[in-house]
Amino acid sequence: MSQTNYYLEDLMIGDRFSSGQATITESEIKSFASQFDPQPFHLNNEVAKETFFKGLAASGWHTAAIAMRLLVESEFKPAGGLIGAGVDDLKWHRPVRVGDRLTLDIEIVDIRPSKSKPNQGIVRLKVTTLNQKGEEVLSYIANLVLRRRVT
Amino acid sequence: MSQTNYYLEDLMIGDRFSSGQATITESEIKSFASQFDPQPFHLNNEVAKETFFKGLAASGWHTAAIAMRLLVESEFKPAGGLIGAGVDDLKWHRPVRVGDRLTLDIEIVDIRPSKSKPNQGIVRLKVTTLNQKGEEVLSYIANLVLRRRVT
Repeated sequence: MSQTNYYLEDLMIGDRFSSGQATITESEIKSFASQFDPQPFHLNNEVAKETFFKGLAASGWHTAAIAMRLLVESEFKPAGGLIGAGVDDLKWHRPVRVGDRLTLDIEIVDIRPSKSKPNQGIVRLKVTTLNQKGEEVLSYIANLVLRRRVT
Repeated sequence: MSQTNYYLEDLMIGDRFSSGQATITESEIKSFASQFDPQPFHLNNEVAKETFFKGLAASGWHTAAIAMRLLVESEFKPAGGLIGAGVDDLKWHRPVRVGDRLTLDIEIVDIRPSKSKPNQGIVRLKVTTLNQKGEEVLSYIANLVLRRRVT
């Protein structure tokens, strides 16, 4: 689908959207980690070899932030913007490495008009982040606040 | 608690840990947003007034990244580092604004030795991010991979 400025009523369960792609560099991994997740396996190539990750890996929160950028730039553009109430069932399936090229698969999995607020509702969006091999690296269900058309 | 290098066996359900604090600046909000969440309510003070957030607000993923830094720097230091398998029930309760001072409340809520891997298990950690008024801004349950003492 490619319409822009979606209201709740414009969406159906099962609708899918695609995204562009992002290639992850070593300097991005280390820059994010030094600001937000300063652990050796995100900062130091040599030390990382001796850790759980067996080599430098992006912070999971960095992967989530990159997925957000891909989502903002994707075809899925709600009226009023992407407003997250929360996220369920977030899983980091495998490490993201230097040079990985990430893309999203986006699917509407639930639509719930608000009982108390007639002008909004919650859309549940399954966001799956894949690497260049088509392997899942991160998936979650986002609960987004969508506007309703008030007529 | 203040021991460092925790193994699974060192923890009990109900154990709590505190963190330092982080004060959020306008330039940090805009810098993160321009990289990862380029939406008007995270980038432009004037435009933000007319949006859902009624003023500039940090990206929810920025708040999550700051919470990660506070967690890494907290008293809770697992042997081998903080390795996240995933996150459940993440909620952004209210916006984070310029000047907000964030801190964490960290609590062990479940401990599950792995059935297949005798040297590890999953510890479920409830992470609550509070602002300077003691209001919740972000909460989630992190599923962390912890080492077991192999004897």
